[in-house]
Amino acid sequence: MRITLLGSGNVATHMGAALKNAGHQVVQVFSRNPQNAAMLAYYLGAEPVNDLRSVHSETDLVIIAVKDDAIPQVAASLKVGESTMVVHTSGATHNQTLSAFGAYGVFYPLQTFSRSRSLDFWNVPLFVEGNNPQTTAQLFALGQTISKQVHIIDAEKRKVLHVAGVFASNFPNFLYNAAAEVLEEHQLDFNLLRPLILETALKVQIHHPNEVQTGPAIRKDTQTMLNHFELLKDQPELQNIYRQLSQLIVKMEEASKRTK
Amino acid sequence: MRITLLGSGNVATHMGAALKNAGHQVVQVFSRNPQNAAMLAYYLGAEPVNDLRSVHSETDLVIIAVKDDAIPQVAASLKVGESTMVVHTSGATHNQTLSAFGAYGVFYPLQTFSRSRSLDFWNVPLFVEGNNPQTTAQLFALGQTISKQVHIIDAEKRKVLHVAGVFASNFPNFLYNAAAEVLEEHQLDFNLLRPLILETALKVQIHHPNEVQTGPAIRKDTQTMLNHFELLKDQPELQNIYRQLSQLIVKMEEASKRTK
Repeated sequence: MRITLLGSGNVATHMGAALKNAGHQVVQVFSRNPQNAAMLAYYLGAEPVNDLRSVHSETDLVIIAVKDDAIPQVAASLKVGESTMVVHTSGATHNQTLSAFGAYGVFYPLQTFSRSRSLDFWNVPLFVEGNNPQTTAQLFALGQTISKQVHIIDAEKRKVLHVAGVFASNFPNFLYNAAAEVLEEHQLDFNLLRPLILETALKVQIHHPNEVQTGPAIRKDTQTMLNHFELLKDQPELQNIYRQLSQLIVKMEEASKRTK
Repeated sequence: MRITLLGSGNVATHMGAALKNAGHQVVQVFSRNPQNAAMLAYYLGAEPVNDLRSVHSETDLVIIAVKDDAIPQVAASLKVGESTMVVHTSGATHNQTLSAFGAYGVFYPLQTFSRSRSLDFWNVPLFVEGNNPQTTAQLFALGQTISKQVHIIDAEKRKVLHVAGVFASNFPNFLYNAAAEVLEEHQLDFNLLRPLILETALKVQIHHPNEVQTGPAIRKDTQTMLNHFELLKDQPELQNIYRQLSQLIVKMEEASKRTK
């Protein structure tokens, strides 16, 4: 497939590489930042473009992989042929945002991407939706060339996945950072926690998280929680989060006992 | 070393296996539950014991690996020779709890253990403290036979590590469970999130978490956060956590901008 990539950020970089590796031809890469466009285009063997008016119509698919709030603006400036499909990669944006095009849809990878980290796209769950059955089928087939896990999903379920992803990734990362702050406050090295963080994530690759919850809250170890609370007295925001999450874990345990 | 293991839970099981594999001799395993004692003792080639009075004194080290609040009681019922060291494995318990013994200390592994999961103890950070320099040195040397990362640490810093571990492991696991609840509420499979969870933990094996924070809150993507909030309206506790953590992430970003 001939593919045009709009964007040069984390998603554009990883998805572009996966598509090229699967044998597709990335024809143009657009970015407002000339250097970013040039770098990613060079890597993908594509033409770099800094103006949306220079995007040509000899392409089968345009992938809009820019920030959520820039999607409407990019879409409004884009001119393509009637047979060209246009998709965005956002979990939080309705596909109707692209309804000015003849064939449009969504191509949403559920993963956290960083340009500095290589990643096996084959294991990334990919969620597609087209504006009609033919577009959906084409996006599904394309998805299968780069991921072993492609799902057809509507906007409402995609939003659910996106929220769940915030709980499963953005919030845990924030808590890793909170842990780092606790350690740094007492001159201890974040390195000490890395094996624990990894093992916690590895556990739920096999188990359901409610089977492997550990810690003072699930044991209702009140004295330890009070000690921890006291230790956080100079970091009131972390203290607050500690109390709230601990209370919820205790509640979860009580609810699960009631259902047993 | 001849070692007596009091307890047959997650920590006792993994630490016992690591010690046996390192060539130490586990002489007795105590558990109130005869079946648990028998199973772990069989696995470790030790004698199972169900009564603390049956623990004999021909041992170099007694490891108390029971629940935090059971440590004082187990310690009170334990009779050992003057030269035998007695340690506990708890992050939250002061070593003074064992001050009735001649040589005592702490042998604390910073990891989340589940009996059903095998684990390379060599990568588990181990924190030791003895009641005098000789005991500390002996515990340090013993630790080095089962872990590549042994640290001498006092009770105060051990408590800091324990709190940080709650933020880095217990709370993230709780949020994995929250994510599962969001998905289950909408008939979506937790499996879809597993690659995202793993990649999030892998990222911070190399990066500091504040370098790789992603998601709507760090981007201050208010519309997406409002959409997410609306979607959680039937799960008010998760909605509350969503708001609180999002607000803290926004704050963190603002604080980091001020220091740049």
